[in-house]
Amino acid sequence: MQSRMKKHQLSQEEMKSLLLKCQTGTLATINQDGTPYCVPVHYVLFNDAIYLHGLPAGQKLDNLKANPNVCFNVYELQGFLLDPEEKPCDTNTAYHSVVIQGKAELLSDLEDKKTILAAIIRKYTPHLAEKEIPLNMLNGTAVFKISIAQQTGKYYL
Amino acid sequence: MQSRMKKHQLSQEEMKSLLLKCQTGTLATINQDGTPYCVPVHYVLFNDAIYLHGLPAGQKLDNLKANPNVCFNVYELQGFLLDPEEKPCDTNTAYHSVVIQGKAELLSDLEDKKTILAAIIRKYTPHLAEKEIPLNMLNGTAVFKISIAQQTGKYYL
Repeated sequence: MQSRMKKHQLSQEEMKSLLLKCQTGTLATINQDGTPYCVPVHYVLFNDAIYLHGLPAGQKLDNLKANPNVCFNVYELQGFLLDPEEKPCDTNTAYHSVVIQGKAELLSDLEDKKTILAAIIRKYTPHLAEKEIPLNMLNGTAVFKISIAQQTGKYYL
Repeated sequence: MQSRMKKHQLSQEEMKSLLLKCQTGTLATINQDGTPYCVPVHYVLFNDAIYLHGLPAGQKLDNLKANPNVCFNVYELQGFLLDPEEKPCDTNTAYHSVVIQGKAELLSDLEDKKTILAAIIRKYTPHLAEKEIPLNMLNGTAVFKISIAQQTGKYYL
């Protein structure tokens, strides 16, 4: 599969559309020993940056504090494109993908955190969007921003 | 979301089951400048290792040749678990996830490559499994093995 695929660039609009549509992305960070680490994350695209949230402790957060360089990826698999002659290695995969390189920073300002958590709630549970976010949640949740240094969108056919 | 989630370990059997079931994983490598890079990949679990294949050139392959340390992740989102009292920050996400740390090595032996490409064809296009893989495809496709140094399976509730 993929062996003879052609890559095409997604437009800015198509990248934004994919980032708005996907529910889960993958965040890659660098472990303390220099090896890469990647985990699935929920996120929201807000004012041209990616925001993540989570527990205020853990490997991902430790990595980000020690080294803010990250890569963030979302993709959508559209399906397999079989070779009309059914050659076994000529199957291609149709998908859209956005790869973002950037730097992560923790938000400390409570109002900023509230704005982002509200955007996350609007994305995932819009019916809860009008409810007040309790202060202990604001304090007890880590929110971080990924500023986009480079963004590449591709589709494969 | 996720803010008060509980993590549980997946058993060896559950991890294997998820690795057999998922169609796409994410591979994280290290760029030449030391930043992380992650992209979606197809893969096959074969004899307790992960195998990937692709074009014999590109950023992913360049990274692997310079630094074989990788992280490979698959996940399956089961759904959102809303708080019974509908507190806006008490939504949790149910998913299964496997995170693998390991080292990648390119296969050079044609018979080894053929075995792995055949396993990939059986996984993704089983109806083409009986067809012969052309020699030019064997030569023109990069196949690499990720030996699993550490494997962590989690589910979140």
